[in-house]
Amino acid sequence: MQADPLSQTFAALADPTRRAILKRLTAGPANVKELAEPFDMSGPAVSKHLRVLERAGLIRRSRDAQARPCELEAAPLQHVASWMESYRAFWEGRLDRLGTYLQELQKESRRARRRKR
Amino acid sequence: MQADPLSQTFAALADPTRRAILKRLTAGPANVKELAEPFDMSGPAVSKHLRVLERAGLIRRSRDAQARPCELEAAPLQHVASWMESYRAFWEGRLDRLGTYLQELQKESRRARRRKR
Repeated sequence: MQADPLSQTFAALADPTRRAILKRLTAGPANVKELAEPFDMSGPAVSKHLRVLERAGLIRRSRDAQARPCELEAAPLQHVASWMESYRAFWEGRLDRLGTYLQELQKESRRARRRKR
Repeated sequence: MQADPLSQTFAALADPTRRAILKRLTAGPANVKELAEPFDMSGPAVSKHLRVLERAGLIRRSRDAQARPCELEAAPLQHVASWMESYRAFWEGRLDRLGTYLQELQKESRRARRRKR
């Protein structure tokens, strides 16, 4: 079964090596050898990760150049970002409620101290 | 091997049913029966998804109540959001460069038209 694009993006991001590869690519295109260097990984192991990232559309690989440099693609990450946006209201609401609760606790504790005097 | 928290969150989000369950929970707590309704899924199938979400810390289930209602947890989503932030600069830069390129094309085409007159 072919996963929907957003599921495919999330599955590709569910690996620290693949996320580190994407991070490296924000600095500019790189080939497999350059991408493998910081990881102490074999070329084929890195190539496997690159295939997952490529299938998810997170990177684009040049077909013509010998070294086939990889480039980061922005579109799937923007898709994740807009998905996240609908949850922002939720967690910001959470923080607001927590703030109100802490203010209430402070008021209560001030009242208690005043009663003690 | 235990995956790192961010990888676990991304893996849990890599499924449309689990994302729909989270969406439903932004409206407030719900039990398994309520969560199963819109999906035409068996209780055990939904429970399996809930276990994945719970292990990733995306939901919290009450231990004492009979119905064990589920609640959304904000922390892992905030973690994803701050991870995303480091890529915002990248794709915004991309859009800026695309904008500059389009402006250059427009100027070029205006110049070409002027030359034709």
